[in-house]
Amino acid sequence: MTLPQRVLVVGTGLLGTSMALALRSAGVDVTLSDTSPTAAALASDMGGGRVAHTDDRSPELVVVAAPPDVVADVVAAQLDAWPDATVTDVTSVKEAVVRDVGRLCPDALHRFVPGHPMAGRERSGAVAARSDLFVGRTWVICPGAADEDRVAQVRQVAETCGAHVVAMDPREHDAAVAAVSHVPQVAASLVAAQLRDIPEAAVGLSGQGVRDVTRIASSDPMLWTQILAGNAAAVLPVLERIEASIATLTQALRSIDEPRDTGDSGVPGPRAVLAQTIAAGQEGRARIPGKHGAPAQTYTSVVVVVPDEPGALGRLFTLIGETGVSIEDMRIEHDEGVAVGLLELSVLPLRAQTLTDVLNASGWAAHLLDTH
Amino acid sequence: MTLPQRVLVVGTGLLGTSMALALRSAGVDVTLSDTSPTAAALASDMGGGRVAHTDDRSPELVVVAAPPDVVADVVAAQLDAWPDATVTDVTSVKEAVVRDVGRLCPDALHRFVPGHPMAGRERSGAVAARSDLFVGRTWVICPGAADEDRVAQVRQVAETCGAHVVAMDPREHDAAVAAVSHVPQVAASLVAAQLRDIPEAAVGLSGQGVRDVTRIASSDPMLWTQILAGNAAAVLPVLERIEASIATLTQALRSIDEPRDTGDSGVPGPRAVLAQTIAAGQEGRARIPGKHGAPAQTYTSVVVVVPDEPGALGRLFTLIGETGVSIEDMRIEHDEGVAVGLLELSVLPLRAQTLTDVLNASGWAAHLLDTH
Repeated sequence: MTLPQRVLVVGTGLLGTSMALALRSAGVDVTLSDTSPTAAALASDMGGGRVAHTDDRSPELVVVAAPPDVVADVVAAQLDAWPDATVTDVTSVKEAVVRDVGRLCPDALHRFVPGHPMAGRERSGAVAARSDLFVGRTWVICPGAADEDRVAQVRQVAETCGAHVVAMDPREHDAAVAAVSHVPQVAASLVAAQLRDIPEAAVGLSGQGVRDVTRIASSDPMLWTQILAGNAAAVLPVLERIEASIATLTQALRSIDEPRDTGDSGVPGPRAVLAQTIAAGQEGRARIPGKHGAPAQTYTSVVVVVPDEPGALGRLFTLIGETGVSIEDMRIEHDEGVAVGLLELSVLPLRAQTLTDVLNASGWAAHLLDTH
Repeated sequence: MTLPQRVLVVGTGLLGTSMALALRSAGVDVTLSDTSPTAAALASDMGGGRVAHTDDRSPELVVVAAPPDVVADVVAAQLDAWPDATVTDVTSVKEAVVRDVGRLCPDALHRFVPGHPMAGRERSGAVAARSDLFVGRTWVICPGAADEDRVAQVRQVAETCGAHVVAMDPREHDAAVAAVSHVPQVAASLVAAQLRDIPEAAVGLSGQGVRDVTRIASSDPMLWTQILAGNAAAVLPVLERIEASIATLTQALRSIDEPRDTGDSGVPGPRAVLAQTIAAGQEGRARIPGKHGAPAQTYTSVVVVVPDEPGALGRLFTLIGETGVSIEDMRIEHDEGVAVGLLELSVLPLRAQTLTDVLNASGWAAHLLDTH
């Protein structure tokens, strides 16, 4: 058992306070510190532990949960302050932190275990904290130059919080989150920004597609400025590839009606550019793994018409529970003007027909869609 | 009652066959035609009506549900073939169709009622058709030069299919769908395409954000090539604005570490560019209306930890049904490696505390999040 028994949490925002709550539930002695005394006191009141005091014994582990733009300085200060402690952080960008900490205290890198629990929300602050924030989430650790037993210590903390640990190189981590998190955030924001100045009637045509594409556009500008600035080197090449693709696309759209000498050059014509863009997206989308990290499973969709009244979903899911069919994913679609919703349930193909039959036999309008 | 009693459906794919099924349920005499005799026969076997015959009486209404690149020709041919009938279409681009039909048969425009039911799926063909495909959907009609009673006829058909009708000018429609549908599709495809060549471990970090942003990237390249080519004029300016924003962003990311004379010029520095991008997205996202076209309602989220086992959702929703609290929206989040899901329920703020208390009292781990 390598779970540290004394942990100091520096920075009592959403992530720091949630870790404090989770570790306290596991019986760990947690102390709390923040540049804002009120924030530290709030986290303590919420059950996150005692506010740190200058007379405290040395912690075994210091968790630095400070904003990205100050995290390296805070990590270095904690490495200096507690010469025996392990220090970890929770920042969503890793290479810059490792580099800056290495510059500030090159002799202490064996005690620094960089980390990134992938559990951000569109909310912040201790008040949004919860002890199960990390349950079911991926937690990246970058072992780097750290001692093996210290890496095991941080891994144990992450697993105690309920997360699934993945070890990665900092550069590899930063390139990964650029593609799967930072650039998707930028794209969502850019698409959503186009809705600012269109007529009310136009926004009224918004369906589930644009809702999904832009959901994360409601995230916090200040936090994302720090993340994008901190990961500029990894975000830039991905964004440049998209920039080049858009230039090709706008050129194709401009020349869509021009007569074309099909004998020339082998350069794809405008329609080929459009088709290749959508096809490339299909390929990339197909790589996103399914539930629980398993290879992307093919599910079948069953769509059920649900009246907009309390109790309808309860009756429906009771019935579904009785069938024993496991629901892998679900979503409710609703459009303007009509008081029903369409509930789309993803289930294993072999069970889809059974589910549809049972629902129809019980008076629900359920429809089996083709596999996707 | 203006519902036509004899309807000819030309093109028996997903939309045409679904309309045929819905109209047959309403007692309408439906005949079916398709360039593929097999497709027409399949739609008939599914209950969509009789396959059309050269001896048929004139239909009152012809529904043209052909692919975007041939729809104007087919509409013109039907206007010629049936000199008394109303003709409508279901294409997702409207201005080009109206222009081309006007060129082909300028004297029959008073009988053409352009339409667009917003009910596309990532599936196609008669086999995916269902009579309730349009229930709860928006159906745009562009009255244009059409006779009032013919517009009323098509409106009645759309409402019989369960849709909510909105009247718009063709150009206004095309600009709207460019912003709320076509450009989001392009953005989803471009983001997803970046996932093609990254390492397996990187794709493994995909969370709910990138899943949402790229969901529609699995759509059909051939259909979307026709849609984007057909709406090039309206898609182009929106995509050009995004192109300009990305150029500004990549420039900002390149200069993020450069020393800057803050006294100069009033041009925003790189961090201001990043913050403004995210803030503009927040503004645009906030304009998307809520359920049933109501102004975006503020909901409170209750997050419940759900074990990954059959029956769990049934027990949960039975309990929720007993509380009488109406669920406005929900989503399941799951990440790699852990066998639980997080179910996020959106409910009216006044009911959120009650729901959380009841769930916790019954042994569920439920958490109230702040309003968003």
